[in-house]
Amino acid sequence: MDYRKAFFVEPGKKLKLKDFDPNSTEGCDSKEAAAGGLDAYGQALAHQQKLLYAEKKHALLIVLQGSDASGKDGAIRRTFTCFNPQGVNVTSFKEPTPVELAHDFLWRIHWHVPAKGDVAIFNRSHYEDVLITRVRKIIDDKTAVDRLARIRDFETLLVESGTVILKFFLHISKEEQLARFEKRLVDPERNWKISEADYSERPFWDDYIKVYEDALSATSTKSAPWYVIPSNRKWFRDLALSQIVADALDDLHLRFPEPTVDLAEIRRKYHAALAAQDADK
Amino acid sequence: MDYRKAFFVEPGKKLKLKDFDPNSTEGCDSKEAAAGGLDAYGQALAHQQKLLYAEKKHALLIVLQGSDASGKDGAIRRTFTCFNPQGVNVTSFKEPTPVELAHDFLWRIHWHVPAKGDVAIFNRSHYEDVLITRVRKIIDDKTAVDRLARIRDFETLLVESGTVILKFFLHISKEEQLARFEKRLVDPERNWKISEADYSERPFWDDYIKVYEDALSATSTKSAPWYVIPSNRKWFRDLALSQIVADALDDLHLRFPEPTVDLAEIRRKYHAALAAQDADK
Repeated sequence: MDYRKAFFVEPGKKLKLKDFDPNSTEGCDSKEAAAGGLDAYGQALAHQQKLLYAEKKHALLIVLQGSDASGKDGAIRRTFTCFNPQGVNVTSFKEPTPVELAHDFLWRIHWHVPAKGDVAIFNRSHYEDVLITRVRKIIDDKTAVDRLARIRDFETLLVESGTVILKFFLHISKEEQLARFEKRLVDPERNWKISEADYSERPFWDDYIKVYEDALSATSTKSAPWYVIPSNRKWFRDLALSQIVADALDDLHLRFPEPTVDLAEIRRKYHAALAAQDADK
Repeated sequence: MDYRKAFFVEPGKKLKLKDFDPNSTEGCDSKEAAAGGLDAYGQALAHQQKLLYAEKKHALLIVLQGSDASGKDGAIRRTFTCFNPQGVNVTSFKEPTPVELAHDFLWRIHWHVPAKGDVAIFNRSHYEDVLITRVRKIIDDKTAVDRLARIRDFETLLVESGTVILKFFLHISKEEQLARFEKRLVDPERNWKISEADYSERPFWDDYIKVYEDALSATSTKSAPWYVIPSNRKWFRDLALSQIVADALDDLHLRFPEPTVDLAEIRRKYHAALAAQDADK
């Protein structure tokens, strides 16, 4: 099953999230099978990252969006711990500071985009500026339309300088969110995470659906695609994520670069002399 | 075997690196036993990081220093890939830029120290400013003495705001370095790394020993200790590193924080009403 095809948000078409089933486990019928797949993709990703880092021609930007408890933190931990931390940066974008708010909305984002050879993972992102801000009427529709255009421009800039952008909407149902909040209430390793704020966006669930549909439709492009990942089943979410990232890196045909020096010359110049000198001691 | 005791650089004493055998595999007699230990410490570290992140009382700064090919990159990959990338930052300090050189030597470092809850790993560090700069006579001894004092002050500032600092000198022999350069010459996955610059510091080997001894002696303290890690055997290096970091985190008695809200109240206020409301649909 090719999840890049199955979950891709078609550019230029109006996305309807109800067409995507958050319970889907398409193409994988058990948690055990998914675990095997995740392991295999994890190994592939570790190797691809090594090549990406060595080659330094491309960068990889992974954007994760989704409601509270949709599993952004869990997906990062379970899907991307395979990466060597040298070469990966995760940024969690929280409420902007006064200094950040005094700048354009992409100012604080730009600093965190990946250098060539690196992977950056955004846990929430510049998309918050066309999501919660719209639902809470901090910006009007005209501003939202402008911002969506500026996001496309910004992502074009990144793509043109060698960045592969993959954007994931972690799609859970409203019922699943409540069930996950319940789990936080009973699990002593999780209940420190609970705040009243968790519940504050639930009355706006349908509004969020609308602004997400609008944002994803307006900014999914061939070179900076959005994928809607069915995320009620965590194991399926992780499998789909890792497959899509691994397949996208495969397409780059990454390889170790050629040596920049004449190896025979280096050997003649240093190794013979040094070995003799070391032996002398 | 307690590697924090075995490899600790005693504060106030003049370190002699020849007292530390780079071939040592003290307390572990095979690569297989080390692999088992590394796995176990990896799992412990993953859990400790989760607690560190949740508790947000402490930060962890790991400093790695050592000659070319001493294994800084490899140690990061093999010892610290266990960490969730969310909450870990690796910074490789390269030759300073003109803007960085126009500031004090700690300016570019300060930006990268870990926030509470986070781990930062420095691949080379502010110590380069009292190492290569001394060997290459870019600074004189008086400046070096001043800088060593400023490093102590800087690290005290970090420790006083909750940072645990662990500093590792990866100790290899001159012969081992040459053998590793040879490997890069023959291994197609490594020979892109070779440059003539790799060889340029070898004639200064003994000078480096001296400035390292000086720097480590002057800056190893109880709260920001240096450890000399025998690193000719990579598997032993990784085992020792992971044990020392895991033991230091153990000492913090990290725990999940208490919830900041009344859980029963939250349950009453949201879950009953929400469940009913969700059921209505």
